[in-house]
Amino acid sequence: MNFDARYAAQSFKSVGTRPIRPDGVDKVTGRARYGADFNMPGQLVGCILRSPHAHAKIEKIDTSKAEKLKGVKAVITATDLPDLTNGDAAMYDILDNCMARGKALYDGHAVAAVAAIDARTARQALKLIKVRYKVLPHVTDVDEAVKPSAPLVQNDVFTAGVDPRPTKPSNIARRSQYGHGDVDAGFGKADIIVECSYRTEQTHQGYIEPHACVASVNSDGTAELWVCTQGHFVFRQHCAGLLGLDVSKLRVTSSEIGGGFGGKTHVWIEPVALALSRKAGRPVKLVMSREEVFRASGPTSATSIDVRIGARSDGTITAALATLRYSCGPYDGMWAEIGAMTAFACYDLENVRSVGQEVLVNRPKTAAYRAPSAPMAAFAVESAIDELAGKVGMDPVALRIKNAAKEGTRSSYGPVYGPIGIGPTLEAVQKHPHMNAPLGRNQGRGMACGFWFNFGGQTCTDLNIGVDGTVTLAVGTVDVGGSRASLSLVAAEELGIPYEQVKAVIADTSTLGYNDMTDGSRGTFSSSMATISAARNAIAVMKERAARMWDIPVKDVDWEDGHARARGKKHGNLPPLSVKDIAAAAPKTGGPIAGHSELVADGAGVSFATHICDVEIDPETGATKVLRYTVVQDAGKAVHPDYVEGQYQGGAAQGIGWALNEEYIYGEDGRLQNPGFLDYRIPVCSDLPMIDTQILEIPNPNHPYGVRGVGETSIVPPLAAIANAVSNAVGVRMTHIPMSPPRILAALDGKKAG
Amino acid sequence: MNFDARYAAQSFKSVGTRPIRPDGVDKVTGRARYGADFNMPGQLVGCILRSPHAHAKIEKIDTSKAEKLKGVKAVITATDLPDLTNGDAAMYDILDNCMARGKALYDGHAVAAVAAIDARTARQALKLIKVRYKVLPHVTDVDEAVKPSAPLVQNDVFTAGVDPRPTKPSNIARRSQYGHGDVDAGFGKADIIVECSYRTEQTHQGYIEPHACVASVNSDGTAELWVCTQGHFVFRQHCAGLLGLDVSKLRVTSSEIGGGFGGKTHVWIEPVALALSRKAGRPVKLVMSREEVFRASGPTSATSIDVRIGARSDGTITAALATLRYSCGPYDGMWAEIGAMTAFACYDLENVRSVGQEVLVNRPKTAAYRAPSAPMAAFAVESAIDELAGKVGMDPVALRIKNAAKEGTRSSYGPVYGPIGIGPTLEAVQKHPHMNAPLGRNQGRGMACGFWFNFGGQTCTDLNIGVDGTVTLAVGTVDVGGSRASLSLVAAEELGIPYEQVKAVIADTSTLGYNDMTDGSRGTFSSSMATISAARNAIAVMKERAARMWDIPVKDVDWEDGHARARGKKHGNLPPLSVKDIAAAAPKTGGPIAGHSELVADGAGVSFATHICDVEIDPETGATKVLRYTVVQDAGKAVHPDYVEGQYQGGAAQGIGWALNEEYIYGEDGRLQNPGFLDYRIPVCSDLPMIDTQILEIPNPNHPYGVRGVGETSIVPPLAAIANAVSNAVGVRMTHIPMSPPRILAALDGKKAG
Repeated sequence: MNFDARYAAQSFKSVGTRPIRPDGVDKVTGRARYGADFNMPGQLVGCILRSPHAHAKIEKIDTSKAEKLKGVKAVITATDLPDLTNGDAAMYDILDNCMARGKALYDGHAVAAVAAIDARTARQALKLIKVRYKVLPHVTDVDEAVKPSAPLVQNDVFTAGVDPRPTKPSNIARRSQYGHGDVDAGFGKADIIVECSYRTEQTHQGYIEPHACVASVNSDGTAELWVCTQGHFVFRQHCAGLLGLDVSKLRVTSSEIGGGFGGKTHVWIEPVALALSRKAGRPVKLVMSREEVFRASGPTSATSIDVRIGARSDGTITAALATLRYSCGPYDGMWAEIGAMTAFACYDLENVRSVGQEVLVNRPKTAAYRAPSAPMAAFAVESAIDELAGKVGMDPVALRIKNAAKEGTRSSYGPVYGPIGIGPTLEAVQKHPHMNAPLGRNQGRGMACGFWFNFGGQTCTDLNIGVDGTVTLAVGTVDVGGSRASLSLVAAEELGIPYEQVKAVIADTSTLGYNDMTDGSRGTFSSSMATISAARNAIAVMKERAARMWDIPVKDVDWEDGHARARGKKHGNLPPLSVKDIAAAAPKTGGPIAGHSELVADGAGVSFATHICDVEIDPETGATKVLRYTVVQDAGKAVHPDYVEGQYQGGAAQGIGWALNEEYIYGEDGRLQNPGFLDYRIPVCSDLPMIDTQILEIPNPNHPYGVRGVGETSIVPPLAAIANAVSNAVGVRMTHIPMSPPRILAALDGKKAG
Repeated sequence: MNFDARYAAQSFKSVGTRPIRPDGVDKVTGRARYGADFNMPGQLVGCILRSPHAHAKIEKIDTSKAEKLKGVKAVITATDLPDLTNGDAAMYDILDNCMARGKALYDGHAVAAVAAIDARTARQALKLIKVRYKVLPHVTDVDEAVKPSAPLVQNDVFTAGVDPRPTKPSNIARRSQYGHGDVDAGFGKADIIVECSYRTEQTHQGYIEPHACVASVNSDGTAELWVCTQGHFVFRQHCAGLLGLDVSKLRVTSSEIGGGFGGKTHVWIEPVALALSRKAGRPVKLVMSREEVFRASGPTSATSIDVRIGARSDGTITAALATLRYSCGPYDGMWAEIGAMTAFACYDLENVRSVGQEVLVNRPKTAAYRAPSAPMAAFAVESAIDELAGKVGMDPVALRIKNAAKEGTRSSYGPVYGPIGIGPTLEAVQKHPHMNAPLGRNQGRGMACGFWFNFGGQTCTDLNIGVDGTVTLAVGTVDVGGSRASLSLVAAEELGIPYEQVKAVIADTSTLGYNDMTDGSRGTFSSSMATISAARNAIAVMKERAARMWDIPVKDVDWEDGHARARGKKHGNLPPLSVKDIAAAAPKTGGPIAGHSELVADGAGVSFATHICDVEIDPETGATKVLRYTVVQDAGKAVHPDYVEGQYQGGAAQGIGWALNEEYIYGEDGRLQNPGFLDYRIPVCSDLPMIDTQILEIPNPNHPYGVRGVGETSIVPPLAAIANAVSNAVGVRMTHIPMSPPRILAALDGKKAG
């Protein structure tokens, strides 16, 4: 589908087809090697001792007994990871989070670690480490933390982004603001104003595979790291920085990854494993348990958001305002800021302001979780928009179409949009049969929109053509969602050869140039740009080789449909040369044929989605059943539609869990009460309907094939769509996520009481 | 030292220094991962059943009992490796050698293989495989094999290279001939003619690490191979061809290598491991025992060589003729041909002819062994030259200097030499104190010359610059002798950064373009050319980046001494930018910085050496002690002199073992009687003196730094140098190598009897 005549449909042969996934056989037969599936001869087992307190001064750590235990080869504390961050605050926070320095800041914060000959010995050694804590008052709740009376998570944090600089420390680490126009004037022009506060609880990405790595540091300052990560080049840089190594001396290999969703973009155990290996003089394997993953990896923020929207009686929004408080764990983040940027990004607004506050709490350091921060902001804003539609008396879809951003709109976070998909997704939803399907008793329907920026960034790809004309593609963006298949399709498209003749692998950090993380939905977008560039460089080489084979000037050689063709009548009788022909001759025409690309992938096209959801509430139990779910999203060009649909479905599924059930539950003592999949309930197959998808293709003009990122936007609308559906079913506006059975029952009770 | 003013000494900062080897720590601490040090989850153990007969028809293989044994996951025979070679005779020989097809051709020839859950089960299963052999007459001796009455090793081999084509099959697979001039006329002009026949026995490279691999074939036609090899790209091509895979679908990673010396340039167990894995559906690890290495990997040829040389009374050689018979095992080879090419390569001859005969015998398929075929030819020719010197009454060194090849000489194998080192090595030897040191009773001194071609070939290198300005170098030539250090020196030289900031790794076949084997002394020669080219490409990128940083035209940027410098007065105040400066800015100036190179390294400079050796004979036991040994060899430019000296010493050490002790001993039954280091005696430390070295540097004009290969030439002179020394000590011309104690005693007895 093409919404803009300027980007007329390109004709693709490989791109847009749906070959079976190349990593599938490995994964279903158990042969794929994940983080824990690698071993080095002589490796030790690492274990981490974690704080049982939410907030405590570490007065003394006595490791002497543990060190004496037979089979223990190294015991480390923060002193074994000296501060080499040289004033880099973000790096310091990473260091402090990997191993507490002076204070334990949350339940689960690492305070010491052991490497021993086996797991049993390592666990026994942990018990022999004596830590003297002085327990401090703690705060885990985002609304409690911003109160002036709250215990301070850090003693020396003064809210940044506020002028003049505050004189008293605070748990609000930083304030950020976005928007334009005059919001007060806008509200003055409004006929109707809605205003409400919303809360969301902290959730975890819930990836199947816990963090795992094998680290080996040599006495000569070179090191190796095998690790499950979304970005081995970034891990290399962080670990090398924390350990004081040249980046070139640390070789990081990314394993297969059993899910990341943003949670594997940060180092947690890896610097610890390296420090253990350095001290022990042997390789160390470190694998988190599920409990450790919950307590001490990086969940998303809990949030508290106030929204105020004003509109004229015809539905035109005149002003929009939001204040977003996002928990960051004990360290400054950019989470509320991203929330503030995304909150109103779907709309064309004259007057808009959003304010973000990064809130420190005694919980684990917040990490990215799929379109991080956007789902909560969308929950608040899209709930308010629905309220507004109700008050204006307009169909919620029509109200959104009326106010939707379009090409040329100045976005609420600054940039002016190019061709975008919010309008088309809304129009597709308006026409979708789902919107007019009948509903039964206790059932409700909701819809909502979502936005995500999509990232680009630094990307390198090497493309090598074998002597049989088949191709290896070495890419550096970890494949979290099928990008090896998508990039093979792109290489095949560009070279004009069958998909089956391309094999993509993720190269380690020593054999390819630097690549940013697979995050921000950048994997396929960026690496396909680099792949196209590398393939075109290889084609240029092949044209030279063909010219040499034919003994004609290279300017007389065209490349078309996977063949070199001699141009002009004088060469008319030369039969075209295929990639295979040229590759076979390569040893005699100049050697191996390759194309390379190092680039910064600029111009990732923004992405929009609109979701529809039907739910049924059980008034007895408060349980919510999702009856039907439809995702409509702009993919730019869908390189491998199966994977695009999978991303749409996956984001919706995670959003459903988040909306209805998932939450971190902390006790009064500041300890996490549900660090396991029995008590932290993610949706399983039987909880979900088949999630329908509709791919729209509004080409991204900055990408040769029009590709946009697709992986994250799908988790943005669900919280709001489901909240709108549940609110419609219950008859009460639901403002607190997850809408777990107790909260539904409370809402029903409130309604009866009201 | 510079012998030619045309190639004035370049000034080097890094190249020519001697940093400690980067792989040393790993190797001495046991952390280096060799062929057997890698494991895949779920892997099986492979074992190979080998023929106990030197020559036998395989009438039937019954694997049914083995297949039924609990824990056995796959049993294969030749039928599991169907012939996909499509008429490629060389590939067919490789296939047949990996798994006998119809006939077992030597003691140790693989006939079946098993993959089982552990080694015990696999070995038990081998015993349950019943093979019905029909034993055939065999021949293992090279002189016996060429007799018309000899049993035929292959029934359908008619000597190639003979016109007209013979009508009867023969064990002489092929005849080759080199030379020029009129040999008969040359002998007619001679005042003195020497003529003699020589024999050498078969030896093994004696690498410490047996062949080992882990293979994993997936049901989707993709496969992985971890393997100890001298050339993983060639292994990929051979294995992919034999298994019927696209080359891009087979990812081969080379392990560290515990010696190769040519013996790991051929596939032996790898296709078998892949076929087992394909059948079992699981990864398979296959490791040869030492006995298997001796019986069924690739030793060098046994030879029988006739030499005739004529000279005028002033020592000028007028004609030289050699006939060289080299055993190839059961398949055609190029061994006698290489012998024929190298035999007279040290000399400037008007009339010369050498004829090679590839001789089939019931022994394992001959493989390359360090300057393959040249040591035996040199032994014969250099012995004859010494004989000639004696008859002419000239000093052996002076006679050689008189006849030595020089720049412009048409070599005996065809090409005209450029600047070469045979003259300079001889002159250095003439002046060397070793030549004039006194000798005692039962002692003798010998010297001899040697030649090796050196290879170039297809080579790819990727050079990536990290954000901290340190560099990773991904090379594809397996590091058998320290090339990672040498190539890091070259990259450091070219970029103007310290050696310590470069880390070289051997990339796997999926992340780099094709590289020929590390053979023919091509590793450092070829990969340094590619490294220089890649570094220069990276410098071009850095100049562009500097121009962008300065906002000046790139044509105004010079690169000098590791810095970008703005040229011209108008930019006079811009301080130079280092690699580190430019790398740090890279994310904002266009992304990661890299340089790549794919090339055919042409122009490997030929290499010459002259060795001096002193021995003492024990007339009671016949034992020979090497008292003193000096190697003088041209290295072109010595990149890392420690490694160059190491190569000189290593070649000499191996030559000493070959000359004095090592040999394959076959029984009447055609079975190898000494497949182990107890009975096949390689020199140990206490057998050897410190081997002195002298590096000459006659720059190779085809290489930017003047580099030549250095790894192989050092094994060419020892057989002859020691034979000349022993002959001088014993007083009898020794014509049969090894000069083991029984042969020395026989010579002494013969002398007494004579």
